[in-house]
Amino acid sequence: MYNINNLANNFFKTPYRLDRIYLDNAATTPLDPEVLQTMLPYMQNQFGNPSSIYSYGRETRLAIETSRKSVAKILGCKPGEIFFTSGGTESNNTAIAAAIRDLHCRHIITSPIEHHAVLHTVDHYAQTGAVTASFVKLHSNGEVDYDDLEHQLENRSEKCLVTLMHANNEIGVLLDIERVGALCKKYDAVFHSDCVQTVGHYPINLSALHVHFISAAGHKFHGPKGTGILYVNEAINIKPFIFGGGQERNMRAGTENVYGIVGFAKALELATANHENDKTYIKSLKSYMQDQLQAQIPGVSFHSSDVETLYTVLSACFPKTAKSEFLLMSLDMNHICASGGSACSSGADAGSHVIRALNKGDDFVTVRFSFSKYNTTEEIDAVVKKLKDLI
Amino acid sequence: MYNINNLANNFFKTPYRLDRIYLDNAATTPLDPEVLQTMLPYMQNQFGNPSSIYSYGRETRLAIETSRKSVAKILGCKPGEIFFTSGGTESNNTAIAAAIRDLHCRHIITSPIEHHAVLHTVDHYAQTGAVTASFVKLHSNGEVDYDDLEHQLENRSEKCLVTLMHANNEIGVLLDIERVGALCKKYDAVFHSDCVQTVGHYPINLSALHVHFISAAGHKFHGPKGTGILYVNEAINIKPFIFGGGQERNMRAGTENVYGIVGFAKALELATANHENDKTYIKSLKSYMQDQLQAQIPGVSFHSSDVETLYTVLSACFPKTAKSEFLLMSLDMNHICASGGSACSSGADAGSHVIRALNKGDDFVTVRFSFSKYNTTEEIDAVVKKLKDLI
Repeated sequence: MYNINNLANNFFKTPYRLDRIYLDNAATTPLDPEVLQTMLPYMQNQFGNPSSIYSYGRETRLAIETSRKSVAKILGCKPGEIFFTSGGTESNNTAIAAAIRDLHCRHIITSPIEHHAVLHTVDHYAQTGAVTASFVKLHSNGEVDYDDLEHQLENRSEKCLVTLMHANNEIGVLLDIERVGALCKKYDAVFHSDCVQTVGHYPINLSALHVHFISAAGHKFHGPKGTGILYVNEAINIKPFIFGGGQERNMRAGTENVYGIVGFAKALELATANHENDKTYIKSLKSYMQDQLQAQIPGVSFHSSDVETLYTVLSACFPKTAKSEFLLMSLDMNHICASGGSACSSGADAGSHVIRALNKGDDFVTVRFSFSKYNTTEEIDAVVKKLKDLI
Repeated sequence: MYNINNLANNFFKTPYRLDRIYLDNAATTPLDPEVLQTMLPYMQNQFGNPSSIYSYGRETRLAIETSRKSVAKILGCKPGEIFFTSGGTESNNTAIAAAIRDLHCRHIITSPIEHHAVLHTVDHYAQTGAVTASFVKLHSNGEVDYDDLEHQLENRSEKCLVTLMHANNEIGVLLDIERVGALCKKYDAVFHSDCVQTVGHYPINLSALHVHFISAAGHKFHGPKGTGILYVNEAINIKPFIFGGGQERNMRAGTENVYGIVGFAKALELATANHENDKTYIKSLKSYMQDQLQAQIPGVSFHSSDVETLYTVLSACFPKTAKSEFLLMSLDMNHICASGGSACSSGADAGSHVIRALNKGDDFVTVRFSFSKYNTTEEIDAVVKKLKDLI
């Protein structure tokens, strides 16, 4: 057999085009070439259906279970608590559906700045009458008002599901997941956290947390699209969201996306191994960009700048002018990729539901810059220079 | 940029190992190297989130919409009727859930030899009390008793969903999909057909069929795992099964598995372009194997041999002996991959629910051989010779 590793080393060097600057890593990230190398054998020789009992099947079964063990070890849980899914959205849907159907939650506490994968799912079940739902109060920086959360939990007689994201995808504000876990424990609530922006970017030790479900997506940390996980605490029993074959120990039917699963685990391994370096580097890019913008763009401000935010996300507010209204388009014309908010709603919406929920008025234009290990200071310089021209 | 096509042409020649014989193509198929070539750019440079409005996003959005058009053209429907999913199982779950929730079906008619992705989903909704369910009678060869189907439809006052697979994955028996469509039209029933074994292997012209939903999976015709489609006839309106972002025109949330989608479309294009040749070739392999087994193995017989079956599947019955009970294991030890039934249940089950449903007793051992364009007559000869030794 030819050596796929040499092949990949020689040819798959840069994951993106050098003539563009990509600062939208919260939307998706380029696949790490090392991850692609790990995936390729499972797109070639090792193609067996993992449920098959012969050699080809045993090989892919082993790859999946090895991946599961690796993910579990990194996240501080048991392999039996990790279920592979088609992505963060499916994981969020599964957790919420199961909390209602199998864990008998009759009220959901969430926040107005969750991802649509949570908000629209909660809406759906609230509309069917299966649950009631309420929003927790937020501070103006997007931080959860923990007193309000406790107050709501205290005053609910029904079984509650609390679903709050670990880091907001638009403004980067972080949840005190330990504190929310402790509150959920105190009031016997089910706790789900959408960790799509933090798994792979933030050390998570599930053994030290009181949480029933967390969701993650491979493509947010240089892993493949179409893959995700749902962590389900072993203390709870749920039924599948997708019914069929006995895959994922009867918990998620459908022939496994083997190369996706292998890629998810590899990406998480790389992210974990290099976490401190990557974090320090990316954090320095974010600070540098914030400093440069502040020095060079009059009137610029930043969402959630008074609170700890995820080091990958910088949400900037530019004064609204005739020019800045078309800022994203102008940036795109200059081969700079950034976004106004979540990619999942960029096509359809009239702006971001997150920024609206913060009630800051509409006399500014929000641009989310989000960074990865592949970005450079030179790119930041070029973007700030271009922004200065454009505003 | 380096030329990925040359790279792939040079290196990705054989999709599986030459020291094994793979005759389980109904379980999964090796990815066609040409499909992999088409997918690779979307695992490298073209990584943008298709919902993003800048260059990287527009490229992947275009790739998805081009794929959708291609799939729709091949299947004889409109692009707006094709929704990309994570696979056949999700598609089946979506169709059945929507038929109940959005199309108000209150009774489901299915068959005992459907795939578990249908059977367990129907079971679930029947257990919740949302629907009742009944099986259509089958002839002993597994063929649907169309008179019984009509009789059941005639006698039901509730809105019915008929969910019957186009070709059975274990015995290959084909449904007269036109006839079932006409019956569903006559009795105003919703019709879903699991076409996982036929899309990519059998010409399907949806414009000439009365069917509301069909499901397909890429990995059954040399496309990628983790990808599928659901066809939803434009005459009906359903809500999503997975809620969240606005992907798939608000019908299937979650960042799209772009390279999976592109691979699905390419695999279907290749299968369609080479259909006549591939079919003739694979059919000849199946006939040849059937003839050779009949000539060389005393007492061998074949399921559904009196009716038209899919040309990719040969379900053989060997007399049960002390040796043949371990036939699959012995074949595996001799590097021959075949299965006792559906891969999705190989690990867990005490045998096949399909074979049990045909009530043929248990004095034989069933082995499913399923073929692809990559199999050869020499492989068949080697397998028949080995079977002769083993029985």
